Amino acid sequence: MKLVRYRFKYPYAQSRMGIIEGDRVLDISELQQELIAQGVLDAATYLIPSDPQVFYQQAQFHIEETEKLLMHRNAASLPMHKRADVILESPVPNPSKIICTGINYADHVKEMGSDIPSYPVLFSKFNNAIIGPEDDIHHPQTTKKLDYEVELVVVIGKKASHVKKEDALTYVAGYTIANDVSARDLQKRTPQWLQGKSLDHTTPIGPWLVTRSELSDPSNLAITSYVNKEVRQSSNTKHLIFDIEYLISFISSLMTLEPGDIIFTGTPDGVGLAMSPPQFLQAGDTVTLEIEKVGTLTNRVIDQ
Amino acid sequence: MKLVRYRFKYPYAQSRMGIIEGDRVLDISELQQELIAQGVLDAATYLIPSDPQVFYQQAQFHIEETEKLLMHRNAASLPMHKRADVILESPVPNPSKIICTGINYADHVKEMGSDIPSYPVLFSKFNNAIIGPEDDIHHPQTTKKLDYEVELVVVIGKKASHVKKEDALTYVAGYTIANDVSARDLQKRTPQWLQGKSLDHTTPIGPWLVTRSELSDPSNLAITSYVNKEVRQSSNTKHLIFDIEYLISFISSLMTLEPGDIIFTGTPDGVGLAMSPPQFLQAGDTVTLEIEKVGTLTNRVIDQ
Repeated sequence: MKLVRYRFKYPYAQSRMGIIEGDRVLDISELQQELIAQGVLDAATYLIPSDPQVFYQQAQFHIEETEKLLMHRNAASLPMHKRADVILESPVPNPSKIICTGINYADHVKEMGSDIPSYPVLFSKFNNAIIGPEDDIHHPQTTKKLDYEVELVVVIGKKASHVKKEDALTYVAGYTIANDVSARDLQKRTPQWLQGKSLDHTTPIGPWLVTRSELSDPSNLAITSYVNKEVRQSSNTKHLIFDIEYLISFISSLMTLEPGDIIFTGTPDGVGLAMSPPQFLQAGDTVTLEIEKVGTLTNRVIDQ
Repeated sequence: MKLVRYRFKYPYAQSRMGIIEGDRVLDISELQQELIAQGVLDAATYLIPSDPQVFYQQAQFHIEETEKLLMHRNAASLPMHKRADVILESPVPNPSKIICTGINYADHVKEMGSDIPSYPVLFSKFNNAIIGPEDDIHHPQTTKKLDYEVELVVVIGKKASHVKKEDALTYVAGYTIANDVSARDLQKRTPQWLQGKSLDHTTPIGPWLVTRSELSDPSNLAITSYVNKEVRQSSNTKHLIFDIEYLISFISSLMTLEPGDIIFTGTPDGVGLAMSPPQFLQAGDTVTLEIEKVGTLTNRVIDQ
């Protein structure tokens, strides 16, 4: 199942939860109302929240309820919307934590001139940076060295504290893609990277959340980035230094993870900074990210 | 005016906005209702939200409305609560950003073996770390080197983007105190500090917000920390390398600040790590932080 956060194309339209299937979006609340109206579901059934903020507060439970709903899908005349009629937003609204993993592919460690870390290197972004799959990446005047980074993103499904590695994946709601856009000049002018990592309107996430029941094994996925259709990064999640189970276990031993929190798992080699000569993003560029079994995330770069 | 977020001492009591005066708390909504009941205020007046989350979404406006209310204070028999009957909470709930400034006092730069930075060094915490002035600091088993850091904290009052230094203080709702508790072993085992800075239930903030109208000049305040009544840090905010106006201008040029966002301004020398031999926090210790014209923040350390 591929969950989307979407809105209709009119002013002040609210975000809603949907399921995307090809070029159609099925609204979860509308589907449930339809099944109630037809008598397939009891009128006293638990109503899955349409508001993504509320949905993700109990992500795992609401995903399971949505999966049950889909078992009745043939009973209903499905209330489908054309994808062209809606706007897809970043899948998870306002996560309480955006935790990023640095230098987590061996080849990227090398190109960045770093050492293989003994522990996961963690830093963060704030929500001001996050944009959706149909938004443009803003290129602010404060940087001359804006760079792309394709990353597999984990979304947490239920509260996680001191989780064992072998149980870690059961805490995952699903997976999506992010472009950890980084202003290299700002990132590297102090010892801490935050100021180059959280510029307004720079970090696309999406286009949807592939739930864990659909993608049970995230450990062997091709991961690629393109700038204007030229391949820049091409690797596989099997090359992660610290894999997803390890990251969840490690992070949850330090801080309690909440439903809807998101973890960026790191980027492989091939970033613009490491090219010879370096190639940074410019207004007019298009960045396309692909992760096998997850999807494709494409965004244009525009001047802020 | 000193704003508090507080709750009564019964289960599931909700956080409310109040003003603290000595050992009494005046509830803002109760005061407003009282003034309406007495006919001092019109019944159609704008109701200041009692919910701190809503209050801080428009912090500057609501602080101004509260100040207007207090002009009528002599008209009402004030509905005061004893401080002993309520629990003070961290002043601002769920800020969208907790931005911390590293190595921002020259003497602390020296004791940490760092260089004087050319730009503010920014990193972050997440809300899982934040506790209130009456809570205990949790000492987790994951660290052997838990350390204190007294810091003056700025709370943002209105949306701020690309703010000029000379206008910066007009974006401030007020000031409070934080203990930027840091697990030095975890902070320093990777190049990024986040994992030592955001452990669950470690970072007290409070005890209240001193509004900008009460504290117009934050640039010359004595700042002190004590562990078990022994002075550990003793400096003055005039020794900040990057002052508050500079920090707000600098940060707002990178990312849009929202009402309720909080900025930690850095700590002076005297942290436990730099003592000879180093002295780290242990269960049973009491840490007291004092900032002139702001207040005193005292928390015990307990084993998690």
